[in-house]
Amino acid sequence: MLMTLTTDFGLKDPYQGAMKGAILSVNREARIIDITHLISPGNILEGALVMLESCGFFPKGTIHVGVVDPGVGGKRRPILVETERFLFVGPDNGLFSLVLRNEKVKRVVHLTEERYFRKEVSNTFHGRDIFGPVAAHLSKGVSPSGFGPEITDILGISLPEPEREKGVIAGEVIYVDSFGNIITNINGSDALSFGPDASLELNGKEIKGLKRTYSEAGNGSPLSLISSSDFLEIAVNAGDAGKAFNARVGDKVFLRAKG
Amino acid sequence: MLMTLTTDFGLKDPYQGAMKGAILSVNREARIIDITHLISPGNILEGALVMLESCGFFPKGTIHVGVVDPGVGGKRRPILVETERFLFVGPDNGLFSLVLRNEKVKRVVHLTEERYFRKEVSNTFHGRDIFGPVAAHLSKGVSPSGFGPEITDILGISLPEPEREKGVIAGEVIYVDSFGNIITNINGSDALSFGPDASLELNGKEIKGLKRTYSEAGNGSPLSLISSSDFLEIAVNAGDAGKAFNARVGDKVFLRAKG
Amino acid sequence: MLMTLTTDFGLKDPYQGAMKGAILSVNREARIIDITHLISPGNILEGALVMLESCGFFPKGTIHVGVVDPGVGGKRRPILVETERFLFVGPDNGLFSLVLRNEKVKRVVHLTEERYFRKEVSNTFHGRDIFGPVAAHLSKGVSPSGFGPEITDILGISLPEPEREKGVIAGEVIYVDSFGNIITNINGSDALSFGPDASLELNGKEIKGLKRTYSEAGNGSPLSLISSSDFLEIAVNAGDAGKAFNARVGDKVFLRAKG
Repeated sequence: MLMTLTTDFGLKDPYQGAMKGAILSVNREARIIDITHLISPGNILEGALVMLESCGFFPKGTIHVGVVDPGVGGKRRPILVETERFLFVGPDNGLFSLVLRNEKVKRVVHLTEERYFRKEVSNTFHGRDIFGPVAAHLSKGVSPSGFGPEITDILGISLPEPEREKGVIAGEVIYVDSFGNIITNINGSDALSFGPDASLELNGKEIKGLKRTYSEAGNGSPLSLISSSDFLEIAVNAGDAGKAFNARVGDKVFLRAKG
Repeated sequence: MLMTLTTDFGLKDPYQGAMKGAILSVNREARIIDITHLISPGNILEGALVMLESCGFFPKGTIHVGVVDPGVGGKRRPILVETERFLFVGPDNGLFSLVLRNEKVKRVVHLTEERYFRKEVSNTFHGRDIFGPVAAHLSKGVSPSGFGPEITDILGISLPEPEREKGVIAGEVIYVDSFGNIITNINGSDALSFGPDASLELNGKEIKGLKRTYSEAGNGSPLSLISSSDFLEIAVNAGDAGKAFNARVGDKVFLRAKG
Repeated sequence: MLMTLTTDFGLKDPYQGAMKGAILSVNREARIIDITHLISPGNILEGALVMLESCGFFPKGTIHVGVVDPGVGGKRRPILVETERFLFVGPDNGLFSLVLRNEKVKRVVHLTEERYFRKEVSNTFHGRDIFGPVAAHLSKGVSPSGFGPEITDILGISLPEPEREKGVIAGEVIYVDSFGNIITNINGSDALSFGPDASLELNGKEIKGLKRTYSEAGNGSPLSLISSSDFLEIAVNAGDAGKAFNARVGDKVFLRAKG
């Protein structure tokens, strides 16, 4: 059974290894795929975006475990979300709210059945002690309804929404990736509706026209295009747009129709 | 058969990939789990701590390969340690000495049987040429005693021990994790024996009282609690204690009973 | 079926996770091994070197997927290379040209059969949309010839070649690893032919004699030896030669026979 992990545990510390050990101690046959362990510590929105851009590509039946959990040990509930295609396991803090937009939720369960946890549950590491073991039991075929009572009021977080006026969309930077490509919250179809001659402004710099590929711009030249996840993206061909535009999450982006 | 890897090979260079290839060339069915490849180069104590905090969570029968090996190619012996639950493979330099505290050692073998090594053994990369292939042969069922003569004198390293006086424990920082959480060498039960009103001093700053969870402190406030590995830990709720306390491995920590 | 990945996708972003999802959606049984996702963005030569030093250690039949692809979406062709031992899948930009030196090429195929791609192919992420799915279909047993027409003119890149004069080889630094070990383009047998008393010069500093192991030099002392991949290497025992020599890729290295 396939299981993915998205956490902020880092890749040096023993935490992601310990969590994998706890999973495999329940189900030796679990096949664990790392999405990432490098979410910025405690950054739920970043974790939600990475899950949005990756979980949906996995085959039906995959169990997605997400642990970005600054409230560990406190009042936030541990939950399980069953959708038509997937199971999600993690804290009820909004981490799944973006990826769930694309899924049909069948039920949400508050994880209360302690027999599916590690025998000793620490107050600081529920990835190892609750979420991993629960995911492992799920992968062995335990029914989602066996883990606790059904609930309906899970926490959501939302992406900032762009503002639209006649001929202008005012959006913002939501992510800068390791290539320096700048992802905005303006979706692809909205951007395309402005035509190929629209212009884009970010931090006082302008880009004219939408390209289809990086290499349509000259080496080292900035361009905008539709990202692989269908957002408006700003890049530099063979370069780092994040540095060139000094871009940070939250910076305003203006898309303007020509003329 | 499950096998874990803990090394200082890094995640960019070809070394951990080459080692996995060498393992799979001996046993295609080996299931390799990365604990970490980001131990600081040559830092045996750090590797020993990460193994202590992760290996024990794996199921019985797991083969744990550790390669932090600054003496590679020199006089240090390649060894295999069989315990009641696990097998450990790596250099005889103390790397396993902390995790072995929690295991019952059945036998230690000096790896001398070259038929279980790669055909050509380099002087600088025994992870690929000796430890990986030996672990792979172990995973195929070769008996530990087949790899060489039994020995009894393996090298140990130890954690610095805290000093106890009446009403005070003087310990030190042994690890700072990627969240900035500061792990000390004062164990959980000793800390708890001082009661919930004990105070802690690190680098001239004081923390009063022991908390149970991060979120019991205000956002951005320092706290102390028992770590998921049962050591006294200093953290900042939703923050980075390592930075806030300017903490480094070796810094002194004082736990004092109230009044 | 074993499959390795070598990319510049980074370990934080959703890209390598999404690519694995796309692979597993075609073949749930694919066994994916990460070589690295930390190739410097767009650095084809670095990717080619890492593949050279790792792919060959895997068992026969392994599918090696390489995606360092600054020309994605442009004119460069997606290809598949079948050799006697392996299959390579990725862009036709030279990424495979070093590792192919050690393999016997049986055929090269231009990937044109879109039925083996994801249904929607983006212009910026062919790892997820073309290379991953093609590798997954290969792992299910589709014949290489089924993916498109055979071609013969693939792009090569080459390592800089050392220059030889009587008693001197003038080479250069081709890689500095995470330990700070400096790998040159002078191969092991050429270096050994100069005898154990040859001297080496890099950035104005000289090293006398070739060692066999790191620990033959004193702690903190520089040495030269033959690397695990059979290149002349400069290291510092228990130290970082890259820093000590201020070495960068392209710096000149002179090996001189004893005079």
